Amino acid sequence: MSPRTTGQIHIIGAGLLGTSIGLALTKLGIDVSISDASPANQLLAIDFAAGRKLVEGDDVSVVVVCVPPDVTAKTVIGALKDFPTAIVTDVASVKSTVLAELKSNTADTSRYVGSHPMAGREKGGTLAGRADLFVGRPWVMAVEEKTDSAAAQKIEQLALDLGSTPIRMSAQEHDHAVALISHTPQIISSLLAAQLSIAEDKDLSLSGQGLRDTTRIAASDPSLWLQILSANSAELLPVLKNFDKDLEQVIAALEQVGTSGSLAKLGKVLEAGNQGIARLPGKHGSTNTSYAQVVVMIDDKPGELARLLTEIGQAGLNVEDLKLDHASGAQVGLVELSVLPNIEEKLTSTLRTNGWRLAG
Amino acid sequence: MSPRTTGQIHIIGAGLLGTSIGLALTKLGIDVSISDASPANQLLAIDFAAGRKLVEGDDVSVVVVCVPPDVTAKTVIGALKDFPTAIVTDVASVKSTVLAELKSNTADTSRYVGSHPMAGREKGGTLAGRADLFVGRPWVMAVEEKTDSAAAQKIEQLALDLGSTPIRMSAQEHDHAVALISHTPQIISSLLAAQLSIAEDKDLSLSGQGLRDTTRIAASDPSLWLQILSANSAELLPVLKNFDKDLEQVIAALEQVGTSGSLAKLGKVLEAGNQGIARLPGKHGSTNTSYAQVVVMIDDKPGELARLLTEIGQAGLNVEDLKLDHASGAQVGLVELSVLPNIEEKLTSTLRTNGWRLAG
Repeated sequence: MSPRTTGQIHIIGAGLLGTSIGLALTKLGIDVSISDASPANQLLAIDFAAGRKLVEGDDVSVVVVCVPPDVTAKTVIGALKDFPTAIVTDVASVKSTVLAELKSNTADTSRYVGSHPMAGREKGGTLAGRADLFVGRPWVMAVEEKTDSAAAQKIEQLALDLGSTPIRMSAQEHDHAVALISHTPQIISSLLAAQLSIAEDKDLSLSGQGLRDTTRIAASDPSLWLQILSANSAELLPVLKNFDKDLEQVIAALEQVGTSGSLAKLGKVLEAGNQGIARLPGKHGSTNTSYAQVVVMIDDKPGELARLLTEIGQAGLNVEDLKLDHASGAQVGLVELSVLPNIEEKLTSTLRTNGWRLAG
Repeated sequence: MSPRTTGQIHIIGAGLLGTSIGLALTKLGIDVSISDASPANQLLAIDFAAGRKLVEGDDVSVVVVCVPPDVTAKTVIGALKDFPTAIVTDVASVKSTVLAELKSNTADTSRYVGSHPMAGREKGGTLAGRADLFVGRPWVMAVEEKTDSAAAQKIEQLALDLGSTPIRMSAQEHDHAVALISHTPQIISSLLAAQLSIAEDKDLSLSGQGLRDTTRIAASDPSLWLQILSANSAELLPVLKNFDKDLEQVIAALEQVGTSGSLAKLGKVLEAGNQGIARLPGKHGSTNTSYAQVVVMIDDKPGELARLLTEIGQAGLNVEDLKLDHASGAQVGLVELSVLPNIEEKLTSTLRTNGWRLAG
């Protein structure tokens, strides 16, 4: 598959997004250079195969600015100056504030296209980078009246090369949408997890998957999210206030359990939740969907996992991902193997033949 | 592996939990009968290998009541009558109301042990049943002063056979804990998903994994949850009110972005979220053991992981948990090893000596 993107791509910022873009483009055979304010991060990203060092005489075609939101505009302005013929994009989670700062600095935005890949992990940093981070994800091109169409197309082709679906909308439309589908879930998840910080150990010992899923993103970096949330407060506030209004109705209903109509109000919220879920578009390319999962129970003793993997290797079978969980009390470990669907049957029969216990 | 459970187990209610229990016990070679108020469901469960039909002359040892919360007490009373020598348990999500109803009906509770497996799926019904639903999950035994110890042990052995970790607490302690770690996440997830029900399609087109995870359980059955939430309103209200108070502080902070101290308040909530997450026990309820993490880069080729684990085993070091991530594009895999902190240094020095590359 030959990539649509041509020329050298320079990435500024070797965090999760910058590293992931670098890994993916490098894999496609594109010439990628990557830099970071931290020399250690930059070295790590290069060692990680996310790109090479930028050198004198490089002819950069596109600059991708992947730095924290509060320094994005400044870095874009610098990039427009340092790379006078390149198209410059950024990947910050809020688009209006970046655009306003560029305008107030009278930056020449004809070569600038703001963008935002709707991809991320609760872990950040260079080592969290993944070439497939963007596969199947929407990538917003924040296109304004003054945006050069050829420049926007160039960034769209880059997004397509990374497996994303480019979506055009204005910076304001983008910020309105992410307030609902990204920033509100972040705040709510953090608020929910915050309730756990004051709980007793005994209560937490019962935690299950529902709690884990609803609070997963509460593990995200507070300083990054402070920047995002405060930059988008205008769009965020109406959604949070509506949530608050609904929550207070639920509280009122629960305070009147037994009186007529109270259950109906509570039921309406639960049903609205069902309806909301149903409106979510099909899952965007999570890697899990393409793999078959085989769960093996192993004895909780040294060497068992190595033995399992050695036998799988001897059978010529490739494991794409692996997760080990100890089922405490049960004296067994559960190994979740993710494999390509076409080898699932061979894997399960091999394991059964060799005497392994498969779960489910 | 021979099961601890002996005798015939009868399951009343062939929904998600009843079917799952039946599947798991049947798999262990235990004699299981299963019934359901709906003849169609009962047939389906039997066809699904979750048990056989109950017949005249059966000698039932344990009855497991797996019906909706609002008919649980009534069904337990019936089971105590119909099976005069059996121990009776139920799996309802709220324990105090069931117990109160039994007492007010002067049921003989000496043969009754309330219980609650902390397992579920957002899908319900017979066909959602899974034999491994309970593996590694906590299973609460709601033990009261009057509970017969031998009866409680019998149910605990059943929970152990299903791979669960039995935890004893009173009905009230259970209800207090699940208000925080199960019922509040359910309401909050539903409220969050409810905001989507009134959104524009354009906004939803940007949805990503964070939104999906935080709203996953909002797809749960409203009528079941109405029963659970209203039965536990007394324990639930203080948690929801605290959440509400925190939310209003966030709203106030976002309304004052730019004024001194507003970011600090927002940051505190995000950090409290981080802290809450950090307190969650390892997936299977092993409380508070904090492991040291060592990340090893391995070549993305068959046999490398087995070689790594073999060498760790040869050094006499025990790995508590393991996660493998493929950094696709980078041609390396990242192996996150969790070990007890006291062997971290020996592990890293062993690996370095053997030539492995450690990240970070």
